[in-house]
Amino acid sequence: MKKQLNVGIVGYKFMGRAHSNAWKKAPLFFDTPAIPVLKVACGRHQESLTEFAQNWGWEETETDWKKLISRPDIDIIDIALPQHLHYEVALAAARAGKHIFCEKPLAMNSKQAEEMLKVCEENKIKHYLNHNYRRTPAVAFAKKMIDEGKIGRIFHWRCAYQQDWIVDPTFPLTWQLKKETAQAGPQWDLNSHAVDLAHFLIGDITTVSSLTTNFIKERPIADEAASGSLSAVSLGSEMGEVTVEDAALMLVNFKNGAIGSFEATRFASGRKNRLTFEIYGSKGSLVFDLERMNELQYFSRDDHDGEQGFRTILATEAAHPYASHWWPAGHIIGYEHAFVHAVVDFVKAIEEDTAIKPDFADGLKIIQVLEAGLLAAETKRQVSL
Amino acid sequence: MKKQLNVGIVGYKFMGRAHSNAWKKAPLFFDTPAIPVLKVACGRHQESLTEFAQNWGWEETETDWKKLISRPDIDIIDIALPQHLHYEVALAAARAGKHIFCEKPLAMNSKQAEEMLKVCEENKIKHYLNHNYRRTPAVAFAKKMIDEGKIGRIFHWRCAYQQDWIVDPTFPLTWQLKKETAQAGPQWDLNSHAVDLAHFLIGDITTVSSLTTNFIKERPIADEAASGSLSAVSLGSEMGEVTVEDAALMLVNFKNGAIGSFEATRFASGRKNRLTFEIYGSKGSLVFDLERMNELQYFSRDDHDGEQGFRTILATEAAHPYASHWWPAGHIIGYEHAFVHAVVDFVKAIEEDTAIKPDFADGLKIIQVLEAGLLAAETKRQVSL
Amino acid sequence: MKKQLNVGIVGYKFMGRAHSNAWKKAPLFFDTPAIPVLKVACGRHQESLTEFAQNWGWEETETDWKKLISRPDIDIIDIALPQHLHYEVALAAARAGKHIFCEKPLAMNSKQAEEMLKVCEENKIKHYLNHNYRRTPAVAFAKKMIDEGKIGRIFHWRCAYQQDWIVDPTFPLTWQLKKETAQAGPQWDLNSHAVDLAHFLIGDITTVSSLTTNFIKERPIADEAASGSLSAVSLGSEMGEVTVEDAALMLVNFKNGAIGSFEATRFASGRKNRLTFEIYGSKGSLVFDLERMNELQYFSRDDHDGEQGFRTILATEAAHPYASHWWPAGHIIGYEHAFVHAVVDFVKAIEEDTAIKPDFADGLKIIQVLEAGLLAAETKRQVSL
Amino acid sequence: MKKQLNVGIVGYKFMGRAHSNAWKKAPLFFDTPAIPVLKVACGRHQESLTEFAQNWGWEETETDWKKLISRPDIDIIDIALPQHLHYEVALAAARAGKHIFCEKPLAMNSKQAEEMLKVCEENKIKHYLNHNYRRTPAVAFAKKMIDEGKIGRIFHWRCAYQQDWIVDPTFPLTWQLKKETAQAGPQWDLNSHAVDLAHFLIGDITTVSSLTTNFIKERPIADEAASGSLSAVSLGSEMGEVTVEDAALMLVNFKNGAIGSFEATRFASGRKNRLTFEIYGSKGSLVFDLERMNELQYFSRDDHDGEQGFRTILATEAAHPYASHWWPAGHIIGYEHAFVHAVVDFVKAIEEDTAIKPDFADGLKIIQVLEAGLLAAETKRQVSL
Repeated sequence: MKKQLNVGIVGYKFMGRAHSNAWKKAPLFFDTPAIPVLKVACGRHQESLTEFAQNWGWEETETDWKKLISRPDIDIIDIALPQHLHYEVALAAARAGKHIFCEKPLAMNSKQAEEMLKVCEENKIKHYLNHNYRRTPAVAFAKKMIDEGKIGRIFHWRCAYQQDWIVDPTFPLTWQLKKETAQAGPQWDLNSHAVDLAHFLIGDITTVSSLTTNFIKERPIADEAASGSLSAVSLGSEMGEVTVEDAALMLVNFKNGAIGSFEATRFASGRKNRLTFEIYGSKGSLVFDLERMNELQYFSRDDHDGEQGFRTILATEAAHPYASHWWPAGHIIGYEHAFVHAVVDFVKAIEEDTAIKPDFADGLKIIQVLEAGLLAAETKRQVSL
Repeated sequence: MKKQLNVGIVGYKFMGRAHSNAWKKAPLFFDTPAIPVLKVACGRHQESLTEFAQNWGWEETETDWKKLISRPDIDIIDIALPQHLHYEVALAAARAGKHIFCEKPLAMNSKQAEEMLKVCEENKIKHYLNHNYRRTPAVAFAKKMIDEGKIGRIFHWRCAYQQDWIVDPTFPLTWQLKKETAQAGPQWDLNSHAVDLAHFLIGDITTVSSLTTNFIKERPIADEAASGSLSAVSLGSEMGEVTVEDAALMLVNFKNGAIGSFEATRFASGRKNRLTFEIYGSKGSLVFDLERMNELQYFSRDDHDGEQGFRTILATEAAHPYASHWWPAGHIIGYEHAFVHAVVDFVKAIEEDTAIKPDFADGLKIIQVLEAGLLAAETKRQVSL
Repeated sequence: MKKQLNVGIVGYKFMGRAHSNAWKKAPLFFDTPAIPVLKVACGRHQESLTEFAQNWGWEETETDWKKLISRPDIDIIDIALPQHLHYEVALAAARAGKHIFCEKPLAMNSKQAEEMLKVCEENKIKHYLNHNYRRTPAVAFAKKMIDEGKIGRIFHWRCAYQQDWIVDPTFPLTWQLKKETAQAGPQWDLNSHAVDLAHFLIGDITTVSSLTTNFIKERPIADEAASGSLSAVSLGSEMGEVTVEDAALMLVNFKNGAIGSFEATRFASGRKNRLTFEIYGSKGSLVFDLERMNELQYFSRDDHDGEQGFRTILATEAAHPYASHWWPAGHIIGYEHAFVHAVVDFVKAIEEDTAIKPDFADGLKIIQVLEAGLLAAETKRQVSL
Repeated sequence: MKKQLNVGIVGYKFMGRAHSNAWKKAPLFFDTPAIPVLKVACGRHQESLTEFAQNWGWEETETDWKKLISRPDIDIIDIALPQHLHYEVALAAARAGKHIFCEKPLAMNSKQAEEMLKVCEENKIKHYLNHNYRRTPAVAFAKKMIDEGKIGRIFHWRCAYQQDWIVDPTFPLTWQLKKETAQAGPQWDLNSHAVDLAHFLIGDITTVSSLTTNFIKERPIADEAASGSLSAVSLGSEMGEVTVEDAALMLVNFKNGAIGSFEATRFASGRKNRLTFEIYGSKGSLVFDLERMNELQYFSRDDHDGEQGFRTILATEAAHPYASHWWPAGHIIGYEHAFVHAVVDFVKAIEEDTAIKPDFADGLKIIQVLEAGLLAAETKRQVSL
């Protein structure tokens, strides 16, 4: 019988569900070296916590996260909380010797991130930051193609992460729209994903120019629980100030000579969760769109004359990372599958004592870019990293 | 605590995995009125059966399906077998008063199907035939739009189900390519899905013309277990005759005056699992492609002049059936999710004693169309139903 | 100075414009061995004819087509008339030794077509039938790829030609909807194009099964001039019978073992002029859509593992037939450009005394298939050719 | 008989052909108030000039552009030259009272542009700057929708103009790659088009941040004629410095509160002439791609719940500007047609003494933005306009 790894999760909203599903599903479809056990679910509100735990099969509940972390039987702390709560929980978990599976963005600022990384390294625990899109078969295959030289020297990274959930001015002032809980708007929430992909696929960023804006300055104050949920919001008549940006654009230089652009917004009507990137190189090009996450577009300058064009690879074949564990070619996977892949690799990293990426070092580097972007926008100057 | 329903599954290959996943996942994402319990997994080969059962959490195993059916604690028999084995198992299960969740295609011929239906009805059990594509949010929403009259009078159904897994002439003579185990080729395997969707979305078919062909007449004989698996095949040097068609085309009249076409093939290089239909009506049109199963294209003649065009609906919003149980808008689901939806509705039908569709009556009707197609191809004449 | 070829055109509506444009434009963009001179425009209504001639630069007008044909200075007769008028004009032109550039479909039936072909051959004139889509760069390049073996053995031809201009039941009973002037509906008008492409790209057809239907049986009688125009129609209150089919579907066997399907309709809401075909072969596949006529989709089974997918070739490069005569790569051409290509090749065939395809022999073969289709639909049986 | 307007064209390469075609074709498809006469073609090399003139029907040739301008019978000077030659010719033409149809980009810098505008205004001639993409039916319709309020308040402009013709490092150092003849690289050539569209569709720009780069610093020196041709280039062994940027990115604020991004490059492998923009507003969104220039994507927040999505409008219908003059719906037009539309509107502006846009005032404004971009890139700071 396989070894078991006891998981304690903190947070039970959107990400709590996605993570729970991943912990359960990973050993069903993959031959993981250990079996994650859904041991303890932790949250502040006992009633909804219990409901969550029962639904997902978490064996126990706990309302005090410090008690959870102090339990000797817990191997992994899963931080499925909004970013303003990551720092304290992560520090405590690392100091208690727990491995950490942490939602993104890593922290509120690079100072927090640096300390989190330092404490994790000191305590020699595995720390994984959940930029899950790296682990879609299409993106993982893109990385493989780039590493094999199929794209050649890279010239361009062009990326946008577009949503539209706050176009309506009556949408309430949720925690995502307040600096004290979110630190920033799409720069933090969306561009953290985009910068992670850029680091993964292109390399390090050396300079950042940026422009941010607010389209809607005030919104109805929401009477929401502080837990990161968008549900159970009731609107008061009072208005409050939106203290994060609504859209964040960046232009960057990469260390390898490529240049790049980022565009993150919650005001792109019709785009629900579109994270798209284009990569242009001396030998070929790649295009990805998260709303069609099973597909990767590839252009090869090596194709015969007259026969060149962007081809749509349906990344569901044995050659595509992770894909063979699911269904036959042509049967697509969904959003949550990349979480499963992350769990698989995380468990493997723990059991084989190997590295897993992205980790808190990557998370720190991302935040440094994001902070540079905010500074560049504020000072209207290019910022070097 | 919720009521439990004990499931016994027969078969543990591709469909065994897909069904197991669905039984487990349904109550996690949906508020099902009862909880399916993965009670007994049944198959002929104890070793691989045990491995399957342990992986998926089936509590017990059984190598004799008759014993499984005779167990009083089993509520549901899940038939995840090749079609030539459905008849016997279904009859026994129905006579034992078990509800049946049956893979498609229903049976080897309409005579079997008729008897299966009759015995199910006599025993008043719930019988569900797993044409799962009905339950993708996009297709279910298409049905809703048609029912609301948004497409108007329907003129055309144009459908193709295209795969390419046997283009290579060295692909072995698996059970799917032999009449004694498969009854027919893509006419049975693929057009059964297509005809189900046509019945669901357009209505009854009254006449069938057809053309079938064989592109490759002989293939290497595979030394395979008879269980429906494509894996573990070792090729001998001997060749055997392909006794089912490689491609099957049909033209049909519908009762409501629409006309339709079907095209099913395993020889469409580049199409892995493309089931596409186009529906044209007096008020609008709909287009679907299974390889982009989260999308539905819709054209409305009511749109303003100059602004008309096919729009791509990303069927991940609250308005789309089943979608709100998964993730926020823009986060797509995968192939296996429609199985979950089927389990949800099946459990509900049992608990609330309501009908579920498609059932064996639908399956019989599908087979009657498919048989008419084979007859039409053979006699080179239109066949009336 | 280059030799000149005097053209006399009969008909001045939609096709009159498209042909006039082609005669003028061909020598501007291509190095034609002779220059077509727009000598005489012929039509029944002097006033509109004069306007047409002046606009397009036809030097003279003539209201009697027999007089036009009797002129010794005319080298080419351009038949831009509805199909019911082709027979008589073509016979006379051929007998007068004029080369013929004829709109499609060739004739009202195969008997007419046979005689037209015979007389043309006896008089050794060049006869071109204007199935212009062969001469789009994308389709011409598809042909080249097939001839080079890049698609391998062809299994499937799947084609639809879809329009929607008569979905509205108040659309009048124009000449296209009456058997005496049109012979058939989309079977003649649209499937003639589709069958031409199938002959060109796949080869000869040996059997035809078919299904046709009428969605709207009666329409308001139009008080139109008999000239083939859709303009200047005024509706009376009287209704008349639609005597051609509204949609025509065919299934065919090809001589080379491929099978095919055709679907032609004027009732596909949202499709304005969509002629799409899919070709699947043992080495690759091709897809074309006339509404994106500059593009050709190509799938190659020779692409590396994991990198296969349908690629979109933008057929505007030097490697694509005709394309280098227009604009730099990426600058698309439009509908009328294929007419120009036809004129270029026609003039070249005359000057170099070579064959041009498709000719009346091809037109006859097309009509034989279309007639087989109508017969198959009527008799509900497969018809052999 | 209609009035005639005598045109004298300076330049006979790529743009010479495109303009000649437009002058000839405009009155054939549109009811222009006057007929342009292709009177004099002017260029430095008599032999190729003569060939050009004969091919296109220019009545006379002239090798001295000053003589051309001094001719009293010329009404219009068409400047189809590289940008470094615009200034002198335009000034002279305006002073001679000739109307000017000028290729883009307008000039080498804003100083030139200001003077050109001033002299044109003083001499009360019509001055048109050929940013032709405004006059594609799709873009013109986009403008109409925006003006009608269908997009609502605009939040985002996201634009890229991507080509790939100099990815190969052996591509020679043509005039486009040298500052003395081109002033800048894609910032001038491509972003001038993009900024024109942004001005047209969104409005004035108030600030610019920018980043430019050079991927390839030296190239083989080309022994080319100075006329703006890419043909007839022979490569020497010597290398020369590329003195313009290879790619230019900009982030901008618009006066109306929208923000925007521009990306112009000649290093996007696989993109031949892709000018794409996305516009996101409070009521809807628009997307355009020049490689599919007949299409406009439109998302409406007013569509019914669940039925929202980007729809692809095929801009070939009567409701789309210019389209009805060509072919029936669904029959697409090509790259050169927008030139025809420009000629039609230019002739109309002359005859009716009305304004035509974009004019030199627009061109000046564009150059001011482009210069601000170059300055911002150089100083690494945001520049205000």
